[in-house]
Amino acid sequence: MPVNLNPPDSKALLPVDGVELGIAEAGVRKANRRDLLLIRLAEGAKVAGVFTQNRFCAAPVVVSKQHLSTLDPDRGIRALVVNTGVANAGTGADGLARARQTCNETAKLLGCTAAQVLPFSTGVIMEPLPVERIVAGLPHCLAALRADAWGDAAAAIMTTDTVPKAASRQFEIGGARITVTGIAKGAGMIHPGMATMLGFVATDAKISTALLKSVVAHAANHSFNAITVDGDTSTNDSFMLIASGQAPMAEIADTKSAEYLAFRDAITAVATELAQAIVRDGEGATKFITIKVEAGRDEAECRKVAFAIAHSPLIKTAFFASDPNLGRILAAIGYAGINDLEVEGIELYLDDVLVAERGGRSPAYEEAQGQRVMKQAEITVRVVLNRGRAATTVWTCDLSHDYVSINADYRS
Amino acid sequence: MPVNLNPPDSKALLPVDGVELGIAEAGVRKANRRDLLLIRLAEGAKVAGVFTQNRFCAAPVVVSKQHLSTLDPDRGIRALVVNTGVANAGTGADGLARARQTCNETAKLLGCTAAQVLPFSTGVIMEPLPVERIVAGLPHCLAALRADAWGDAAAAIMTTDTVPKAASRQFEIGGARITVTGIAKGAGMIHPGMATMLGFVATDAKISTALLKSVVAHAANHSFNAITVDGDTSTNDSFMLIASGQAPMAEIADTKSAEYLAFRDAITAVATELAQAIVRDGEGATKFITIKVEAGRDEAECRKVAFAIAHSPLIKTAFFASDPNLGRILAAIGYAGINDLEVEGIELYLDDVLVAERGGRSPAYEEAQGQRVMKQAEITVRVVLNRGRAATTVWTCDLSHDYVSINADYRS
Repeated sequence: MPVNLNPPDSKALLPVDGVELGIAEAGVRKANRRDLLLIRLAEGAKVAGVFTQNRFCAAPVVVSKQHLSTLDPDRGIRALVVNTGVANAGTGADGLARARQTCNETAKLLGCTAAQVLPFSTGVIMEPLPVERIVAGLPHCLAALRADAWGDAAAAIMTTDTVPKAASRQFEIGGARITVTGIAKGAGMIHPGMATMLGFVATDAKISTALLKSVVAHAANHSFNAITVDGDTSTNDSFMLIASGQAPMAEIADTKSAEYLAFRDAITAVATELAQAIVRDGEGATKFITIKVEAGRDEAECRKVAFAIAHSPLIKTAFFASDPNLGRILAAIGYAGINDLEVEGIELYLDDVLVAERGGRSPAYEEAQGQRVMKQAEITVRVVLNRGRAATTVWTCDLSHDYVSINADYRS
Repeated sequence: MPVNLNPPDSKALLPVDGVELGIAEAGVRKANRRDLLLIRLAEGAKVAGVFTQNRFCAAPVVVSKQHLSTLDPDRGIRALVVNTGVANAGTGADGLARARQTCNETAKLLGCTAAQVLPFSTGVIMEPLPVERIVAGLPHCLAALRADAWGDAAAAIMTTDTVPKAASRQFEIGGARITVTGIAKGAGMIHPGMATMLGFVATDAKISTALLKSVVAHAANHSFNAITVDGDTSTNDSFMLIASGQAPMAEIADTKSAEYLAFRDAITAVATELAQAIVRDGEGATKFITIKVEAGRDEAECRKVAFAIAHSPLIKTAFFASDPNLGRILAAIGYAGINDLEVEGIELYLDDVLVAERGGRSPAYEEAQGQRVMKQAEITVRVVLNRGRAATTVWTCDLSHDYVSINADYRS
């Protein structure tokens, strides 16, 4: 296990050797808004990522996947360019051309090839990306590059987010102190299968590209793919893991090594903190809900049950109202799609309160107990299926009036 | 095709020979509320039904299914008892006993067996059914039995519904004039796999039980199973089709006959009108949305796309705001779960306006066109997949502030 040298509530965002960030006001959609971020990587940095499964995936997702999959090992990724305001999704061939132009212009400025640049966009779908404004903003990003701009970077990629999301920790792995710092954005259109719209985590650890890929998949699965706000899978979701390799350590190259597992845990911890920050900032969210499903036959069925609960507007409004209308949770378990589920065996807990068992309300349960837990700002729903040994945890938020207001007003 | 003798907007609810309805105030959950309905059927009536797929299905659903599946052909169903206020779901063995007691007491009053009675409940989940109040109310229902009480019956089964839902039409089938009258309730927890919480349609047509079963399945699939308000599948959903057989006609006994098809269309038409009434009264609904998905490989994939759109809170809030933020619809099509979908072939229409094609916004599309349609109270979204010949239609409503208010306050 990695030794966490910083408590999770640390406000300090630590620079990562080999990673610089530059922010500018490009006026992509609105004036006087820092909306363009350039992340420059030192030579030798390795990058791996996971992307949205949406078939209408955005042009920058297509281009980033292409650049990562055709990477020349001697010419690694040198820059990531992120704009907010316009998603460049649902934009057809023209959108692809604009995403590629962003890479070309960045490459010219940095003296690398376009294939060494990864583009990312977030914002409104089906509107053309004003690429000329992005091109005009890039030199300002370049001039502003700093290693300690993680906080500003987190703010620059926000859309409906109300707070920037960032996390930073140091770990000791194989005798070396390594740093992991990440930022993420997302508040709506949040659903597994890449939940955050954008997440960038950087570390100075040394690790092979193959192992970096397996770490990013593991971390995504246990963090960004385990949250939901509204069940909508965005067109632009991307989670990128950058390893600059500048830490004084031997390269992690064996998935069986203690160093690999420590590194994987460290990255997953930071990704989980970022993913939870997205849920806490879920559009209109007033409560943070943890859903644990235990003793299932396999993880897939545990996830079905957990997300049936997490997606139910009826349950989410009951949380908003602090109303222990907990039969709605039984209903969601019942329609989660496990066809041979025997409801008599299921136990439902709200925090430590046993609410239901043997197909109905527990004899010991009193509504005052449920009421007490429902009033909390953080609530754990625990479902014990009693049919196997698999388990899963997902995080979500409640559904409030503000969710409707935010999404009704987003473009105006 | 059946000849429809009444226009669909007819207000008159026609009695059905052999079917009587009695309503009483039983005080199930609240006082001074007509909350108990007894439907008495003349001897020889046939009943078929479809029920919720929810694994936590309610005790009355379990009992009704049992009574229908073990029916003695010489002792058909004679009564349906419906209460609102408490759903008797998530109530375990005790709930089953209470549902059975309702049947026993009804049977005593009517001089039939308990197996000839079908119980139905709707309301709050996981609370015990106050069966003693229902038993006390039954004699009042019996005393109130009338053939022309369909309107009162529609009102008596409401929960969060704001208007009673009923439809009535006459058709000529095989030279005989037959009547179809139905009522339904439901406004939230509405999702395919039995969408209405409760629907009862009665006709005086003569038809074999086997064919009645196939008609009820067909009608449900094209009506109640093609609507969604919030994606929650209730524990209590039941759609019952009653054929009293009192019309002067030969029994419909051949699925290939013109009479069978005419009857099926007539029942489906009434069921569709009731299902659409549920959507129009969807919790907090301000708009009625028709979603047509065409030119798919099979109906299953058309339904996936249609329900991805119909369930998206982001799309539903955009309809509420009359905001033509139509990229959200492309996003939903993209995450509907068709893994080999080529987005370049898809066309998206809002009413007659071509919004998107070739993976992006149509060159001819102007936002003012979308804005005009989005302001309407009734909107059709049409998605042409261009990969086959299958099609489907589903109906839904928007997501408004009032949905949150209604579900946050439902129990208080």
